[in-house]
Amino acid sequence: MGRRVVPDTVEAIAGAVAQARAQGGLILVTGGIGPTRDDRTREGVARALGRPLRVDRVAERDVRAWCRRIRAPYSSDRARQSLIPTGATALSNRTGSAPGIWYADARGMVAVLPGVTGELKAMLPTLLPRLRRRAGEEIASATLRVAGPGESTVDARVASLSKRFPRTEVTTLASPGEVVIQLRCRGKAAGREVSRCRAAMARRLGRDLVSECGKTLEEEVLSLLRQRRLRMAVAESCTAGMVAARLTSVPGSSRSFLGGAVCYNDRAKTRILSVPTKILERDGAVSRRATLAMAKGVIDLTGAEVAVAITGIAGPGGAAPGKPVGLVHWAVGTQGGLRAWRRRLTGDREKIRSHAATIALDLVRRALLARGRIARTLRD
Amino acid sequence: MGRRVVPDTVEAIAGAVAQARAQGGLILVTGGIGPTRDDRTREGVARALGRPLRVDRVAERDVRAWCRRIRAPYSSDRARQSLIPTGATALSNRTGSAPGIWYADARGMVAVLPGVTGELKAMLPTLLPRLRRRAGEEIASATLRVAGPGESTVDARVASLSKRFPRTEVTTLASPGEVVIQLRCRGKAAGREVSRCRAAMARRLGRDLVSECGKTLEEEVLSLLRQRRLRMAVAESCTAGMVAARLTSVPGSSRSFLGGAVCYNDRAKTRILSVPTKILERDGAVSRRATLAMAKGVIDLTGAEVAVAITGIAGPGGAAPGKPVGLVHWAVGTQGGLRAWRRRLTGDREKIRSHAATIALDLVRRALLARGRIARTLRD
Repeated sequence: MGRRVVPDTVEAIAGAVAQARAQGGLILVTGGIGPTRDDRTREGVARALGRPLRVDRVAERDVRAWCRRIRAPYSSDRARQSLIPTGATALSNRTGSAPGIWYADARGMVAVLPGVTGELKAMLPTLLPRLRRRAGEEIASATLRVAGPGESTVDARVASLSKRFPRTEVTTLASPGEVVIQLRCRGKAAGREVSRCRAAMARRLGRDLVSECGKTLEEEVLSLLRQRRLRMAVAESCTAGMVAARLTSVPGSSRSFLGGAVCYNDRAKTRILSVPTKILERDGAVSRRATLAMAKGVIDLTGAEVAVAITGIAGPGGAAPGKPVGLVHWAVGTQGGLRAWRRRLTGDREKIRSHAATIALDLVRRALLARGRIARTLRD
Repeated sequence: MGRRVVPDTVEAIAGAVAQARAQGGLILVTGGIGPTRDDRTREGVARALGRPLRVDRVAERDVRAWCRRIRAPYSSDRARQSLIPTGATALSNRTGSAPGIWYADARGMVAVLPGVTGELKAMLPTLLPRLRRRAGEEIASATLRVAGPGESTVDARVASLSKRFPRTEVTTLASPGEVVIQLRCRGKAAGREVSRCRAAMARRLGRDLVSECGKTLEEEVLSLLRQRRLRMAVAESCTAGMVAARLTSVPGSSRSFLGGAVCYNDRAKTRILSVPTKILERDGAVSRRATLAMAKGVIDLTGAEVAVAITGIAGPGGAAPGKPVGLVHWAVGTQGGLRAWRRRLTGDREKIRSHAATIALDLVRRALLARGRIARTLRD
């Protein structure tokens, strides 16, 4: 396993593919199949395979259809996208202009897919049946998602399991406020091995476990809301829309998410959420009272049953005596009442903001799990 | 130039670094210097250099300070982070736990930095003086950012310049609604060559050029607002906070950005933004009238001088007769009045949402450049 990034030249691409061919297995090449002059992947792969490019009927039909759709002429640059190495198969791209390429022989497989993330993601599943046909060995994997404790704490809690499941390879990946644990195993009964290891980890992680099926924090929050027939709203200051954007990245989120307010300055807090001017003057916008008033305000405004409010100092400016950069207050409102937390986060502006958004979602998750009784989870 | 991703084993890391050393130059290794068991970069690099690890005083001081800050014990796992290959220098990490490593000899340079993006970005500048000390040749680069036309159109407009500036290497990178052009040149008078090429491109791109200094669309919008002493608000439906989150990712954005509303369902549009129920019933939430009412509503609510409203169908569900997935309406309100646009975007949910957010920012940018007179830029 490995990954390489090479410059946009035929020589570099051909060289890298030829080298990778020596190792066998699957070579996945992404990017460089668009219509512009620096898109040279087709030529590079064709040279590495020693198979000249030819016009492919399926690819040409797809490229022509795309041109009609975006009302662009089928120019000579576009026509280059219909070229495929002899002996290879074109892979239809339903979300973009560039058809992919599939090639397989005794030495291995080469798949060429677009570099645009959305198109790549949409096309990856088309490789699965082709790969299964060639795979001999059983391979299993699982993803657990944890919110709250840091990577070292999570690692320490699950470390001893590696003795019980020596064949399962464990990788952890941390982002602010979240840790993703990946399990991988190959060979006989790999599926059973991984699911046992996953279950043992889940027991050790308790409430800190967001999901053991790869579900994201926002997906889990939306599932809990749907199960409980509750609708949610947000009142965001320092995260300014990040919590709303994460929730609505999930298709169907409109069933449980109503919307809310982005109140980036004091006037917006007063005008949109009716936060009393008195609180902003006495306690300041980054305070327990302000965040509680924001949560109450957005519930009154939207009629939601669940709300989370976030206000903090993301930096680099904005610090005041007793209110350092990184200080964040959250409030969660449910039918069980309102509750506030605060914590000082570390890192730069983007890290503080995304960490604050993650904690907001996690507080809602824990509140929903506690069924009305909100657990005290953050150090005050 | 090249990039490789290798598994978290001492062998794989040592092998990759040793191979890269054969080519000389700078080797940048990122990730795998945390405190967990799968962090094996230190050992791998030490083995590749043939230089054993020893405790570094600077690194130890930094790791101990980090542990005190997060109230964690200086455990044996943490102590591993204080190890540096003999002859190497520790690089202080002010935003995370893991010190970096710098090593240079006659064969080249090796820099080890954290994999966490925020920490990596914060530490990269510390390499600059070290690199400059060793660079002989002049190297120049520039970044132009374009919003509106697609990659092929941009490419066609600037293509002929490559004859006038043959030494300048041009790379384009597209994301929905934006194209980034990167110029690179090395050798004698590289700086002058790049700045001439940049100026020629800027002339050809006209109003589609967002910036020629790498400034992002959101930074440019905030600059224009600040220059004109205007404050802005947003009313987001399908983008649900993405425009607000992008604007507020820029430090100091609170001077020009007030906030706004995320109205993900009809009730929120009526309750928060006073969109008349009549419009929602007759025209629907994804309509020209609804988006105009949202823009007006958020101006009334926040007192902003500039506002943008977005409503659309991000999919995969939600389509209706005459309202396909991807249909988006925008409205921009300025002191010159209200104006609406619509367009059908392609791609999956995430692509449609981020494209719609980019277009929203670009419409505001063009409206601000037109000084009251909003240019008709999108096909109706």
